[in-house]
Amino acid sequence: MDGIKALLFDVFGTLVDWRGSIAREAQTILGPRGVTLDWPVFADAWRDRYQPSMDEVRSCRQPFCKLDVLHRRNLDAILPRFGLEALDDATRARLNLAWHRLDGWPDSAPGLARLRERYRLAPCSNGNVALMVDLARHNGFPWDAILGAEFARDYKPKPIVYRTAMEAFDCGPGGAMMVAAHTSDLVAAAQCGLRTAFVARPYEFGENRGERAPGANVDVSVSGIVELAERLGA
Amino acid sequence: MDGIKALLFDVFGTLVDWRGSIAREAQTILGPRGVTLDWPVFADAWRDRYQPSMDEVRSCRQPFCKLDVLHRRNLDAILPRFGLEALDDATRARLNLAWHRLDGWPDSAPGLARLRERYRLAPCSNGNVALMVDLARHNGFPWDAILGAEFARDYKPKPIVYRTAMEAFDCGPGGAMMVAAHTSDLVAAAQCGLRTAFVARPYEFGENRGERAPGANVDVSVSGIVELAERLGA
Repeated sequence: MDGIKALLFDVFGTLVDWRGSIAREAQTILGPRGVTLDWPVFADAWRDRYQPSMDEVRSCRQPFCKLDVLHRRNLDAILPRFGLEALDDATRARLNLAWHRLDGWPDSAPGLARLRERYRLAPCSNGNVALMVDLARHNGFPWDAILGAEFARDYKPKPIVYRTAMEAFDCGPGGAMMVAAHTSDLVAAAQCGLRTAFVARPYEFGENRGERAPGANVDVSVSGIVELAERLGA
Repeated sequence: MDGIKALLFDVFGTLVDWRGSIAREAQTILGPRGVTLDWPVFADAWRDRYQPSMDEVRSCRQPFCKLDVLHRRNLDAILPRFGLEALDDATRARLNLAWHRLDGWPDSAPGLARLRERYRLAPCSNGNVALMVDLARHNGFPWDAILGAEFARDYKPKPIVYRTAMEAFDCGPGGAMMVAAHTSDLVAAAQCGLRTAFVARPYEFGENRGERAPGANVDVSVSGIVELAERLGA
């Protein structure tokens, strides 16, 4: 791992538990209004529209817009399926900001604190800057910069997102490492010259529905961010 | 000042003493090689090429490149004037990174720490991300994100630099404030809908050669960042 100066992190699923957090936030906001739902199913339905909505931008069928905008559009699209087509605008806006209050996995903040002593750290996420900033403050993630989709004005796994992040940290091939719980993200990063670290998050989509092992060759495979710090000698 | 959510900072001159730091770094690097110069004059000569080099990008005569690249080009251009045309490449590269080791004015870090409790903070500087990250680590600047020229891929005072920074923090008109020691920066920011705070840095260009008072209307005028925190109730 010699020569690595910077670590770039996927965030949703890799560092934070989006599914459990969205289910909890939806219940907190909608429960007092008498709504009863299968909250994790609601979270899954919202997230199911995540990749298709970004595909509109990746394919240039629409210009870049922040993930907050896509999240809101996706929320509006699923509400009727849950009998919530009459939900008022202010509550939709508040619900949409649930993505800014996701809880980190327990090892994320302690692992990042150790890694920061040795490496430059940034998220390389599809989340927008304000969302990443709020997650950092909520969870104590010690970022040096916020890189990723809004910085590149396109969405992963488009190469420009990884490349602009590497360049921002003055890293050539092999000088940065992508850390993610998703093989597809790591494969795309490796094609741009990044080293790769897989983090197993078996609970990302509910019990045992996350990736338990990498589906391609990676440089490091760990079960959390503290273990990553140990493996990298930080 | 109600409604302000984010503060955006100019950095060179406003938060850090580029002239004193560059003079000192040049002496540290070149002095042991037997070079004797008027070090502040060397710093001024290097900085004199700063605006003209960015004009090449602002005018679209050349594509965007990082400030580190412009700094190196400007260094190469002035070395013959100081009899240093034979300076080797490694030393030029080390000297160029002096811009990553500038010292903050004494009030900068303490003031930012207070402001961070109440506002989102980012540099909106013409310096590139890696340069801003190194200055933040060197001086303890607690940024939420690194915005500015590399994020916008153009240089201040082009409106896109201020606008992309405001948008990244979800701020509309009046929702963000630009903090700078240069009236021209604040006038351009105000035209984009930012509030403005002037910071007097009379020693920026040597004794009494910095701006002592704003040359246009501003919302706040202070003598340092701790005073800014007091004025904003942070």
